[in-house]
Amino acid sequence: MFGSDNQAGAHPKVLAAMAEANHGRCGSYGDDPWTQRAHDLLADTFETRDFDAYFVATGGAANGLALSALCPSWAAVLSHPHAHVLEDEGNGPEFFTGGARHIGLPTQALLVSPQDLEAAAARHSPDFVHGLQPRVVSLTNLTEAGQAYGAAHMADVGETCRRLGWRLHVDGARFANAVVATGASPAELSWRAGVDALSFGLTKTGAMALEIMLLFGPARTQAAAYLRKRAGQLFSKHRFLSAQAIAMLEKGLWLELAGHANQMAQRLAHSFAQAQCPLAAPAMGNEVFVHLRAGQAHALTEAGIGFYPWPTLGADTHRFVTCWQTSDRDIEAVAKALSGAA
Amino acid sequence: MFGSDNQAGAHPKVLAAMAEANHGRCGSYGDDPWTQRAHDLLADTFETRDFDAYFVATGGAANGLALSALCPSWAAVLSHPHAHVLEDEGNGPEFFTGGARHIGLPTQALLVSPQDLEAAAARHSPDFVHGLQPRVVSLTNLTEAGQAYGAAHMADVGETCRRLGWRLHVDGARFANAVVATGASPAELSWRAGVDALSFGLTKTGAMALEIMLLFGPARTQAAAYLRKRAGQLFSKHRFLSAQAIAMLEKGLWLELAGHANQMAQRLAHSFAQAQCPLAAPAMGNEVFVHLRAGQAHALTEAGIGFYPWPTLGADTHRFVTCWQTSDRDIEAVAKALSGAA
Amino acid sequence: MFGSDNQAGAHPKVLAAMAEANHGRCGSYGDDPWTQRAHDLLADTFETRDFDAYFVATGGAANGLALSALCPSWAAVLSHPHAHVLEDEGNGPEFFTGGARHIGLPTQALLVSPQDLEAAAARHSPDFVHGLQPRVVSLTNLTEAGQAYGAAHMADVGETCRRLGWRLHVDGARFANAVVATGASPAELSWRAGVDALSFGLTKTGAMALEIMLLFGPARTQAAAYLRKRAGQLFSKHRFLSAQAIAMLEKGLWLELAGHANQMAQRLAHSFAQAQCPLAAPAMGNEVFVHLRAGQAHALTEAGIGFYPWPTLGADTHRFVTCWQTSDRDIEAVAKALSGAA
Amino acid sequence: MFGSDNQAGAHPKVLAAMAEANHGRCGSYGDDPWTQRAHDLLADTFETRDFDAYFVATGGAANGLALSALCPSWAAVLSHPHAHVLEDEGNGPEFFTGGARHIGLPTQALLVSPQDLEAAAARHSPDFVHGLQPRVVSLTNLTEAGQAYGAAHMADVGETCRRLGWRLHVDGARFANAVVATGASPAELSWRAGVDALSFGLTKTGAMALEIMLLFGPARTQAAAYLRKRAGQLFSKHRFLSAQAIAMLEKGLWLELAGHANQMAQRLAHSFAQAQCPLAAPAMGNEVFVHLRAGQAHALTEAGIGFYPWPTLGADTHRFVTCWQTSDRDIEAVAKALSGAA
Repeated sequence: MFGSDNQAGAHPKVLAAMAEANHGRCGSYGDDPWTQRAHDLLADTFETRDFDAYFVATGGAANGLALSALCPSWAAVLSHPHAHVLEDEGNGPEFFTGGARHIGLPTQALLVSPQDLEAAAARHSPDFVHGLQPRVVSLTNLTEAGQAYGAAHMADVGETCRRLGWRLHVDGARFANAVVATGASPAELSWRAGVDALSFGLTKTGAMALEIMLLFGPARTQAAAYLRKRAGQLFSKHRFLSAQAIAMLEKGLWLELAGHANQMAQRLAHSFAQAQCPLAAPAMGNEVFVHLRAGQAHALTEAGIGFYPWPTLGADTHRFVTCWQTSDRDIEAVAKALSGAA
Repeated sequence: MFGSDNQAGAHPKVLAAMAEANHGRCGSYGDDPWTQRAHDLLADTFETRDFDAYFVATGGAANGLALSALCPSWAAVLSHPHAHVLEDEGNGPEFFTGGARHIGLPTQALLVSPQDLEAAAARHSPDFVHGLQPRVVSLTNLTEAGQAYGAAHMADVGETCRRLGWRLHVDGARFANAVVATGASPAELSWRAGVDALSFGLTKTGAMALEIMLLFGPARTQAAAYLRKRAGQLFSKHRFLSAQAIAMLEKGLWLELAGHANQMAQRLAHSFAQAQCPLAAPAMGNEVFVHLRAGQAHALTEAGIGFYPWPTLGADTHRFVTCWQTSDRDIEAVAKALSGAA
Repeated sequence: MFGSDNQAGAHPKVLAAMAEANHGRCGSYGDDPWTQRAHDLLADTFETRDFDAYFVATGGAANGLALSALCPSWAAVLSHPHAHVLEDEGNGPEFFTGGARHIGLPTQALLVSPQDLEAAAARHSPDFVHGLQPRVVSLTNLTEAGQAYGAAHMADVGETCRRLGWRLHVDGARFANAVVATGASPAELSWRAGVDALSFGLTKTGAMALEIMLLFGPARTQAAAYLRKRAGQLFSKHRFLSAQAIAMLEKGLWLELAGHANQMAQRLAHSFAQAQCPLAAPAMGNEVFVHLRAGQAHALTEAGIGFYPWPTLGADTHRFVTCWQTSDRDIEAVAKALSGAA
Repeated sequence: MFGSDNQAGAHPKVLAAMAEANHGRCGSYGDDPWTQRAHDLLADTFETRDFDAYFVATGGAANGLALSALCPSWAAVLSHPHAHVLEDEGNGPEFFTGGARHIGLPTQALLVSPQDLEAAAARHSPDFVHGLQPRVVSLTNLTEAGQAYGAAHMADVGETCRRLGWRLHVDGARFANAVVATGASPAELSWRAGVDALSFGLTKTGAMALEIMLLFGPARTQAAAYLRKRAGQLFSKHRFLSAQAIAMLEKGLWLELAGHANQMAQRLAHSFAQAQCPLAAPAMGNEVFVHLRAGQAHALTEAGIGFYPWPTLGADTHRFVTCWQTSDRDIEAVAKALSGAA
């Protein structure tokens, strides 16, 4: 129930849009009116036309393609030590980039700071051919620990990357939650802050399977089209990806759904507070990390409430993820289970 | 209209099955009842339980994964010189295999024969470390030229591969059409013939986006699960792939749709015959390759009938592909346009 | 005896130069006076300072690095169908480039012509994301069949590549023989003709193990230094590579040795002519390809004369390679064996 | 002077052996009597014939090949966080393995312990397809910090790897120094301890450029021959690598030279002790890591004595490496400089 936002189904409007797109024959591989419409909606959403959009089906694919478009095979990508792209995608980044090194920054903080990047730059000399060569920074927004980078923080990071000659990628599997959490605009959390590539995830937000790899401004490159094709990520019946984008972006459904999920997380955090369960990290988006006593965890499990232990934030920490489908009843079930727990 | 079978939409039953699967939350990444049901249907379809199935979204992904599971990076894959996997997937095979060489066999025939393979074995010594090392054969059934390998031919190829110590892959983007065309069973065209891996395509047949990479018997390997994940091809909301499989395999919809497409191709071929247009290759499945005079091609285009020139079968050759959506009216439109052509 | 020019030892002056460099300690990885001196000699030899030189130990490494510096992983390299880099380096080009496709041009001629390249450009559309994307041409000079590209031919190819937006690499494992054979200058057969990268081989010419990967003008890139290091081709005791270069380039030893080898090939060709053995290709450099009757081949083998069958030039064709160590006595042994042959 | 053992030249006997091998023509690529002789000497040295030996020219190549022979592209290699193979070979391991992840173990100790490996096994589940998959452990002996793994420690690690189903590689760039330091036999520090692959380095010990990648027992695989060829590491005039091996292994020259270097390190450590400079790590082999006051470091530099700062062992730590060429006079120069230092 709170195991992950990808355990939810697709929002009914997404399926409806796919059904609407299922009329007759049309050009394949993106040569269709739905894809054109989706591009227009992306332009509106991000307030720019200076972008390329590559629609794929998984976050791993979007991240891999983004990194392969930004990072040479002989260079290195820097991430938070617990970034999804570093820890949870098999060897995806190495595969897509042809062997780029992936380095977890030695930080204890929940967010990567410009200082972390400058320290890394000091450790790795660009003229030392034996050593590792950072060229790309990959941040996650929301992070794996549910934290949001705001517009100012992101702009600082972007400015640092520019100064160091590095590219900046954002893994936005929960980008919608970050936008809602920070109140920043999609543009402020991406290209205006100097982000070169964004994995704009919509699956967790409520789509069926849709992640959009966006390249902005100077990072746009024709190579990305070949890299996507090569990776088996160019869909023939492309309209069904585009229809998902239309459903989500039109009338702001994506933000509405993320807003609901974030709100449910607030309510969940409130329930934990009432049960004297301290949070392991601020509940900024749709993820709540909480310290539970063994009896509490047991009671929740007994009540059929799904969630995962999250040892990177402490041995007794557990993760609860809300989504567009989370209901008041789900929250109440948690509260009820906690109230009876040892 | 006849440009490609991937210009069609998804069959309504496919969308209906996806909508039916869209109820509540369930385990992600294939840990759900729909995926279990789809596996059972695959076991029935292929008359065996000695297989692993990996559901992905594109033919390029299925082929790439199959080759990466079968072929070491230092070895070579042999294909027909006009195979899709050789000519039309960017550098996908090289990407997935980590640099395996891809060799087009020097044959003029429409089908690869055991003799072609033996000749290749004679050309490439397994002890000559400087030379190329064939280890995998990849056939396409239906081929890019619309030809079907029958059960006996496939068994001969399989036997030859076994003798040479090579693995055998079949790109089955139009496997349904081959099954219908040859009257052979899915098992006869795959594992019973010694096929190690099958890219079992259902997208062109009528699904939305579903290709199933099947590994049979001794070719089964846990590595494939890691290879799929690494490639960004493991879907989180996996039930929506499985639902497509259920719709297609249950009650034999996949063969019904392929049967319709093949029949439409027969009727199309008949129309061409009546207009004195010679075929460039026998119309065995759902593809018709036909020599057209310039005036005929022009008349068809003017009538709004989509199709592609296909120069590999002759300068004046054109390809027409039928699909589950092809209607009598489509065929009649061709006949009518031809009747008035110069 | 005529098996290959790499069956020879190193010229005594090469070993002497290595011994001379073996005095005391010096900087490693090329930070030493011998490497500086070798660079100066390269500048003199090629009449330019607008180059980068990477010293490696094998031709496969030089070719692989050159291709990795020129060709993106999603693009393709075009070669003569019998090029060494295509047929005799395992999957080296795929390995170094991260999966670039390697395409043998469909030519029957001994040399690749500008027309071959234009025909390839016509076959592969740069906007067709599914198809292969030629971006680099790799020629061999001398070719595997012992033919030399002259300055004018090379300039035509270079001009064609520039027009098509492609890069040009030359595998010069026998570059010295080509320079002597054509009378062209090293510059005319490389950067002046538009060559971006040259694998400047000296091992076959008389060094112990030295191939120099040269990048010229706009093709120079810092990436090459990282690519070499990554490939385990940056030597720590680099002076011993540089010493070889000094010995070979100083006072033109490399051309003197190649001149000797070419002359010996002329004498060998003359011996074959006298024995009525027709050549399979003109003897331009240090390789003689000759049709032999079975009895002649047998007699030569019986006489202890080493050589290889070379079926790509005809079933009864055999290759004889001369080198700096080939002596009058070696030639006479061939003539004698032929005179007594059936 | 103490910058690195690769700043030394080659031992005169090495050059002499190369000159002796430079007589006439012989088979290339290792088909020669010197290579046969070198194999026999390896068998004597390691007390087994159950091995394959691949002669290459750099440590990066030997390590890369070993890892590519042991580790699938989708798996991970575990090393000490400051291992050379992790930090100082560009992205070599990723390149050779086709993208295997390289993980630095989170240890503060100078040696990797079986407990470190078990902790890593506990962190990474072999059934969790999203996570990293350790399959190979790569230790360095001597380590980058000059420490030696003894026979018992190595056997414990080997036993742990066997139990976990992992392969074990040893980077032996300074293997000779480890053998001398520990008094263990080459066999005890390799296959008898369960080592699958050893990068047996002889360059730093006194060769010109020779590293031997050894595969033992069940790890032997024909694939390694193709992997070496593909990487451009198969030398044509192979006898010159083999001659180096002969010179080094015959009559135990390699151990004699390492013994000298280790002894010089002892004397150097003694000099530091007399000058009240504390060591940062025990001087077990031919490397001395020492804390120096700024004035001491300055005085040594002023005296023309080369060495490197080594911040991974402390901000004021410096590395001094001895080698076969290190003389009493070198040691005295250090002592003298220190005696006058502030």
